[in-house]
Amino acid sequence: MSSKRATSLKDVADAAGVSVATVSRLLNGSLQLPPETKERIDKAIRDLRYEPNPHARRLSRGRSETIGLVVPDIANPFFATLVAAVEQEADKRGLALSLHATLNRPGREISYVTALARNHVDGLIFVTNHPDDGELAAVINQAGKVVIVDEDVPNAIVPKLFADNEEGGYLAGRHLADHGHRHIVYIGGPQEMISTRRRFLGLERALMERGEPFQVTRYEGSFTVEFGRQAARRFIDEGKQATGIFASSDEIAIGLIEVLLAEGVSVPGEVSVIGFDDVGPLHLFAPPLTAIRQPVRALGERALALLLETNWQEPETLRSEELLPVEIVVRNSVAPPSKQ
Amino acid sequence: MSSKRATSLKDVADAAGVSVATVSRLLNGSLQLPPETKERIDKAIRDLRYEPNPHARRLSRGRSETIGLVVPDIANPFFATLVAAVEQEADKRGLALSLHATLNRPGREISYVTALARNHVDGLIFVTNHPDDGELAAVINQAGKVVIVDEDVPNAIVPKLFADNEEGGYLAGRHLADHGHRHIVYIGGPQEMISTRRRFLGLERALMERGEPFQVTRYEGSFTVEFGRQAARRFIDEGKQATGIFASSDEIAIGLIEVLLAEGVSVPGEVSVIGFDDVGPLHLFAPPLTAIRQPVRALGERALALLLETNWQEPETLRSEELLPVEIVVRNSVAPPSKQ
Repeated sequence: MSSKRATSLKDVADAAGVSVATVSRLLNGSLQLPPETKERIDKAIRDLRYEPNPHARRLSRGRSETIGLVVPDIANPFFATLVAAVEQEADKRGLALSLHATLNRPGREISYVTALARNHVDGLIFVTNHPDDGELAAVINQAGKVVIVDEDVPNAIVPKLFADNEEGGYLAGRHLADHGHRHIVYIGGPQEMISTRRRFLGLERALMERGEPFQVTRYEGSFTVEFGRQAARRFIDEGKQATGIFASSDEIAIGLIEVLLAEGVSVPGEVSVIGFDDVGPLHLFAPPLTAIRQPVRALGERALALLLETNWQEPETLRSEELLPVEIVVRNSVAPPSKQ
Repeated sequence: MSSKRATSLKDVADAAGVSVATVSRLLNGSLQLPPETKERIDKAIRDLRYEPNPHARRLSRGRSETIGLVVPDIANPFFATLVAAVEQEADKRGLALSLHATLNRPGREISYVTALARNHVDGLIFVTNHPDDGELAAVINQAGKVVIVDEDVPNAIVPKLFADNEEGGYLAGRHLADHGHRHIVYIGGPQEMISTRRRFLGLERALMERGEPFQVTRYEGSFTVEFGRQAARRFIDEGKQATGIFASSDEIAIGLIEVLLAEGVSVPGEVSVIGFDDVGPLHLFAPPLTAIRQPVRALGERALALLLETNWQEPETLRSEELLPVEIVVRNSVAPPSKQ
C-alpha cells in the first residue's frame, strides 16, 4: 500500500499498543478504559491525524449491520472458500452477511450494487466474472462503499484487491521453461478479464527471459470445466503440438484432465500440465497436479478489512489496487518434453 | 407427503390452473386478474379449504424479506453446493439470504437460532454438525420458522429434510457385497449423528441380506479429512484385515486415499473403497472413486420450498421428515477381494 494511504484504525491501534477493537469501541463510547490507555490512544489519534470514519463506526456498531457479498457462483470451490473467509471475518466483527450469486444472469450485478445504494447493506464486496461495458462501473462509483475482489471492473474507482496474477503466470511459465518447454498452450478465461490477461503476460515474461524462441497458443474462453474439455479436444485435434499446458483455473484443469484421460493422452508423459487456484484436491489426481495456489482465504479476510478501513470520504484512497502473493505447489504433472 | 398435509398455495394454483406466483400475488393484493380467473382461484381456495398463511404471505412480499441459512462450514463443497441452491431459490422469490457458518464454535448454533426468534430473519434453514444435549432443540421449538436439513436435531419439532442415508448405506453395502466383500471397515462421522447411524444401518442391512457371516469394523469420529487420515492409519496398523472400506463422506475419502496412497496401499488391488457425497471431482482420483451421490442441490431447493410452504400454525405438519433419494455412481475403486 502507498504511503499516501489515510491513517486507519489499525495504525492508531498499533501506535497505541492496543487492539483495533479497543480503539473502535472507545470511539463508539462503548468501552471504559484506564486513563493512561485512553491517553495513549488519543495521542496516537492526534499524532497520526486519524479522522474517524463515520461509516466505519456505524459498521462496527453491532449485529444489525450487514455486509453484502456478490460472487459469480457459490458452489465453485474458489468462491465458496472466499465466502467462508469473508463470513468468518464478518462474524468476528458482529456483522451479518447477505450473500448473492450472479451466475451468468445479465443485469444481476447491477441490481445487487443498486440495492446497496438503496441502503439494504452497509458495504459490498464484489466479484465479477465477465467484462463490463461501463454501466456496472458507473453504478459502482455511484454506490460508493464497494470493494472489488479477484476480477477488475475497469473504470470503477473503488479499492481493488486481486491475487498477483502476473506473478502467478510467471511462476507457471518459469516452471515449464525450467523443464525445457518452449511451446505452451495457455487456457484462460474470457480474454478481457484481467486475470486472463495478467496470467498470460506473466507466462510470456517467463518465456521471454530464456532468450530463446518460444510459442504460446492461446485458448481463451471461460473459467469452466466445459471450456477445459473443449480446450483438450482442440489441443488433440490440432495435433498435440505443444509440450506443456497452463490450465489457468481448477475448473479448466478438471475439464482438461477429464478429456486427456479419456483420450489416453498421458500426463506428463505426452504433455505437461500446470494449474492455477489449487482449491480442489489436486493432490489426489492422476497424476497429482502441479499448480499455482491462490491465497483465497487471505483475499476474503483482506476484502472485509479493506471495506471497513477505507475512508470513503477521501477520493485518493479509493484508487487503490492491492495484490496478494501466490505460490507454486510442485507435484507430478510437469516433466521435460518427451521425444516423439 | 401424507394426505393429512394442509392445503398449500401450490394445491390451489394447480386446482385453478394458474401459477403459484399468481395466487400469491392475488392474495397480496398486488395483481389484477380477469374475473373468471379470480373466481377459479377463489373456488379452489374454498373447495380445498386453503387457509392463507400470514407468515407465508409476508415471506413472499418482496426483496426486504430475508431467509437465514446456518451451515457448519461454507468452504466445504457439500455445504457450498447446498448454499448455492438455497440462494438460487431464494433469489427467484425475491428473498435475500443471510448466511452464517457455525464451524466448531460452541454456542453459535443457539445464538443464530435466537437471532431468528428476534426477527432478524423471516425463516431459517439450519444444518447442524454435532450432537445436541437438548438446548438447541428447545431454542428451535421456541423460534418456530425453522427447517432442519441434512442432520437431525432430535426433539426439535419442525420440518426435517434429509438424504436417504439408510438407502445410501444399503447401496454401498450391496455394491461391496456383490463383489464378494464380507469384512468391511465403516468410517463414519460422530456416532450420535443420524447420518452416521443410518448409513451404518443400511450397510448392515445389505450384508445381512446375503445370509452369510460378515463383519463391520466401525471407526466413527468426524466428517473431516483428518479423520479419514486417522482411519487409514488405524486400518493399516490393525493389519489391513478388512477387504472393503466405506468412507462415508468426501472429506473422509480424501483423507483416507491420501494416506493409503502415501503408504503404498493399492486401491482396489489391496482394498476396495466406496465413498459418499460425490460433490468433489472423485472421477479424477487414482483410481476414480465409486461413491453414493447425495442430491445436494435438491436438498437446498426443497429446504427453501418447505420453509415457505409450511403452515406454521398447524402443529401436525411440523412433525414431518422428508427423505430425498440417493444414487450409486460406479467407478473403479471397488473390485473383488484379492487373495493375500
